[in-house]
Parts: sequence; structure tokens; C-alpha cells
Amino acid sequence: MTKPNAQEISDFLLRSFPTSDGSAMFAVEQVSDTSARLRLIATKQHLRPGASLSGPAQMGLADIAAWTCILHNLGLSAAASVTSNLSMSFLAKPAHADLIGDAQVLRLGKRTCVCEVRLYSVGQTQLVAHATISYAIAYLPADAALQSVKPPPPVD
Amino acid sequence: MTKPNAQEISDFLLRSFPTSDGSAMFAVEQVSDTSARLRLIATKQHLRPGASLSGPAQMGLADIAAWTCILHNLGLSAAASVTSNLSMSFLAKPAHADLIGDAQVLRLGKRTCVCEVRLYSVGQTQLVAHATISYAIAYLPADAALQSVKPPPPVD
Amino acid sequence: MTKPNAQEISDFLLRSFPTSDGSAMFAVEQVSDTSARLRLIATKQHLRPGASLSGPAQMGLADIAAWTCILHNLGLSAAASVTSNLSMSFLAKPAHADLIGDAQVLRLGKRTCVCEVRLYSVGQTQLVAHATISYAIAYLPADAALQSVKPPPPVD
Amino acid sequence: MTKPNAQEISDFLLRSFPTSDGSAMFAVEQVSDTSARLRLIATKQHLRPGASLSGPAQMGLADIAAWTCILHNLGLSAAASVTSNLSMSFLAKPAHADLIGDAQVLRLGKRTCVCEVRLYSVGQTQLVAHATISYAIAYLPADAALQSVKPPPPVD
Repeated sequence: MTKPNAQEISDFLLRSFPTSDGSAMFAVEQVSDTSARLRLIATKQHLRPGASLSGPAQMGLADIAAWTCILHNLGLSAAASVTSNLSMSFLAKPAHADLIGDAQVLRLGKRTCVCEVRLYSVGQTQLVAHATISYAIAYLPADAALQSVKPPPPVD
Repeated sequence: MTKPNAQEISDFLLRSFPTSDGSAMFAVEQVSDTSARLRLIATKQHLRPGASLSGPAQMGLADIAAWTCILHNLGLSAAASVTSNLSMSFLAKPAHADLIGDAQVLRLGKRTCVCEVRLYSVGQTQLVAHATISYAIAYLPADAALQSVKPPPPVD
Repeated sequence: MTKPNAQEISDFLLRSFPTSDGSAMFAVEQVSDTSARLRLIATKQHLRPGASLSGPAQMGLADIAAWTCILHNLGLSAAASVTSNLSMSFLAKPAHADLIGDAQVLRLGKRTCVCEVRLYSVGQTQLVAHATISYAIAYLPADAALQSVKPPPPVD
Repeated sequence: MTKPNAQEISDFLLRSFPTSDGSAMFAVEQVSDTSARLRLIATKQHLRPGASLSGPAQMGLADIAAWTCILHNLGLSAAASVTSNLSMSFLAKPAHADLIGDAQVLRLGKRTCVCEVRLYSVGQTQLVAHATISYAIAYLPADAALQSVKPPPPVD
């Protein structure tokens, strides 16, 4: 299997998370066997008065950054993988800017994958949040078209 | 101080989380000194193909259920309180229905509040998710109009 | 399979966690399909100047309370199950007394078990700590003598 | 204030965590404003049949590594700081060797400190565990002798 690259995963994310105007919500800036960097393209959808990115939006970015690590290592058919556990510390107010999620694989096993993700605003050094995310690995049926959306958890 | 009741907090949530059509996203069904029950009124915004409620939507509900406990006990001026830590286990696929968040106060101190929240779909017994949420308590300036939106963390 | 009862699990814990003087560290006070109650019999080993029970001791109790739920439901051969994730909030100073761990099963699947555990000191109402614990289920080889000690994680 | 160095903190840890034979349980190998490296000197106390380091022992190391970051930055009088939240993922079986805890400060504020800690066995690359730890900062009374043991949580 050729591991999907950043562009292929970005395209897959666009199909999985369609927006009302068709523009991408996430961009995969870099991906390797042990890491991934994602950008959350800040939109009105996430911005509340006070120009901040909400907690759930931050969680979504961390979650998708971890999912990207799985998709790269195991292929797009691993898109059936679901979040089993997420633990997040909120550290600083995000800036009115795109949000970057830097994921690192802590352990990739046959059944589970554990990643840590650091979130920061473009142009700021202080971390906005830190997450540790565990996934239960699962595969789509062999004949499933690879346009699946991220499924809810869990399967066991 | 008269503690805000369920209706007052529901109204406050509607002001804090406006939706495009003006309808409420959350309804506070019950609130006491030690607990709160919230309903997430499922909308297209949260439903993805496959009729599920996303992880971030579940996190948002758990977070707001915990915030409700703080608003009731400390007053709406405590709306400046921010999430410091959130830990969530995803247990089962939600049904295509409203989602209920049952929050219990584990500890309410002067600076912090810790709650646990159980999420389940209306009509289903199996828990969809379980969260433990820590808040850093903070108050709005005395003269602030109580229409504030939930601020991002943290202040320290 | 007859599910092991409280006494049988207590005996198993004594074999798994031998103490220097042979006395039990844990007592299973109650166990059912959905819950377990354990008592940590406070000893000098855990008490530090200031008469407190350490964080690691509290973690150990929560962990074993969750493990008890698994042993009861799946049999002692499930003793090979290992902790994959633990999240703990420390809420109040424990009293100079035995510590009780009340575990509830949030979800028991084929591969994983998620429990929440509430810790409190005998004679005190305020919770000392709250934990959410995830286990990866595993079984000892069929011929293994059931004296095994709790293995370290994880297997995957 | 001169920030305590690795040796001074090691000595303080020895006073805080006395062992039956007087030997150190922990050694601070390195400390800076943003990080700390601790070694857990494996002893019979922690080793169970199967030559493994228990979950609680791993938690203890992670906790003390985070505490070390606080002691270095804020001085030994900050020893009254207590763990408010700990989240830990267990990734691999430790080897029969000393355990290293690498802590990084994610955020150090006036009231709270959040660290992440990576645990690995000497001689092994695969992480044994990963923890994220939050502390509530507190100071000993000005006249307290700096021999205090680590207090249990929390104060608020």
C-alpha cells in the first residue's frame, strides 16, 4: 500500500467534512509516519463574538490531526477508526487566526493508536491547548467507496 | 443572590450561542445545586451523513452542562469561567435524536469546579459518552451586561 | 462460568498483591455486574507525614476497583487485562482512614472496558478523587494457574 | 530567588520521600525553566513478579517530574502545590530497568501549572507511558522548614 500523502488526505477530509460553501475546513500541511500537521482554516462558523476559536472547534482539530496520522499509516480504509478517549488541557486564549494542530504518534498498535496533539495559533508561541487522543482502529469494508465520513464511536 | 433557574439559564445560553435561525441549541431541563440536565436539540449542523452527533458536538454539550452548574451556583456573572481540562470517553454511537447531558458537581471550590457529565440519546439506555470537566472560576466585571458569550480559556 | 464473588476476588487480589506481613491491602466489599466497591486498608506504606494517602495509592485503588469489575464479569482468567488509559481528578484531602473506591461500569465490550471510580474516605462525604479508567481486555492462557499478578500494559 | 538546581531538588525529594534504607527513590538528572528529567531508581518495592514497574509507580514518577518543574521555577516553598488532574496513557510494558520521566512545561501560570511527561525505560525507545498533569500552585508558610513532604490535594 502506498501511504496517502498530505494532499490526498486533505482531499479526503474535504469530502468527509463538507462545508456550506465547499471550501476546505482543514488543510494537511505535513504528514509522516510519526507526525502530522494540520491547519484549521478559521471561519465564521467557529468564531464567536470575542474572536476566539471554541473549545469544540479545538477538539475537532486535535481529533482530526490524530485521525490523519492513522489514515497516513494505515490507508484511507482505516477511516472507520473512531475516537475512544480524548483528554484536553486548555492553556491559552487563541488568537484571531488559523489554528495549527501538531500531532505526534505515541503508539500505533494493531487495535489502537494513541497520539498527542499540540494546538497553537499561527503567529503565537504559547500553546493554546494540548490533547492526548486514543483511537480504536477499524477498517471500512473492502468495497466501500472512500468518501466515508468520520463515523461516531465506538465499535469494539 | 437568587440562583438563576433553568429557564433563566436557557435564555442566557440562547444569547451566548446564537444560531442562524434564532432557535435554541440547548435547553436546560433541570438544575439544582449539585446537578444539571441539558438537552442538545439535534440540528443539521451537527448531523453528518450516517445520522450521528459529532465528537465536538458531544464535547460542547458536556462542557455547557458543566458550565450550567457553575452559572446556577455562582450566578450569571460567573460566565467568565473557562474550561481548563476536559477528559472524555466515547462509549457508544448516538441515536438520531436529541442528546441529553446529565452533569453532577464533584467539587465546587472558590477557584475551580469539577463536574462529571453523562451523555445519552433520548430513548436509549447505553451511555453515548462520559466526561470529566474542570473549570477555572472567573467573574465578569460588575457592570458587564449579562449577554456575554462563553469566553475561551484560560486566564489564571 | 460462575462469576467470581466478592470473597473470591478479594482472595485473588491478596495473591496478586502480596504484602510483607501477609495482610490484605484490598477488600472487595461488594460486586455486581455493573459495580464494585473496594476498600483500601490504610497502612504505613501509604501514609506519609501529615496522615494522608498518596496520589499513587489513590490511583492504585481506582485501578483495582475497575479491574474487579472485569474479573467479576469475565472471570479470573481476564486478569491479563491491562489499563490503557486513566484520568483522575483530585478533589479533597483524604482523612486518616481507610479509602473506599466505588466503581461503576460505563461500558463493557469485547475488547475494552470503561469504568468510573469515586474515591472517598470512610466517614467523609466529600469525594477525595474521581477517576475514569479504560482497560484493554485480555485473557490468561487456558492452563495458567490463577495466581497471576496484574500484568503491566499494554498488549494490543 | 535563585532557582533550585537538580542536586538541590534531588536532596529535597529524598527528604520528602524517605525510603526504609535511606536510599533515594528519585534522581533529578536535569532541570531547566521548561523541562525536567527524573530517574526512578527501580527497587523491589515497585517490582512485581514479571519484573515490571506498576501503574501507580509510573504515575508517581510522572507526578514528581511535573512537581520538579514547579519547584525549580517557583522555589522549594512551592512544595505545597498539589496535583489537581492527571491523565495517563499506558503504551508499552516497561523493561526491568530504571524508568526515566521527561517532563515539559506546557503552561506555568500564577495559579496553575500544566506539564506533559513521557516515561520510558532506560535502554528502550518505545514510550512506556505518557501523562498530562495539572497542578494547583500553593506556597508553604514563610517560616516552614523546607523538609515538607508532598501534600495531598487539593486546597483551592
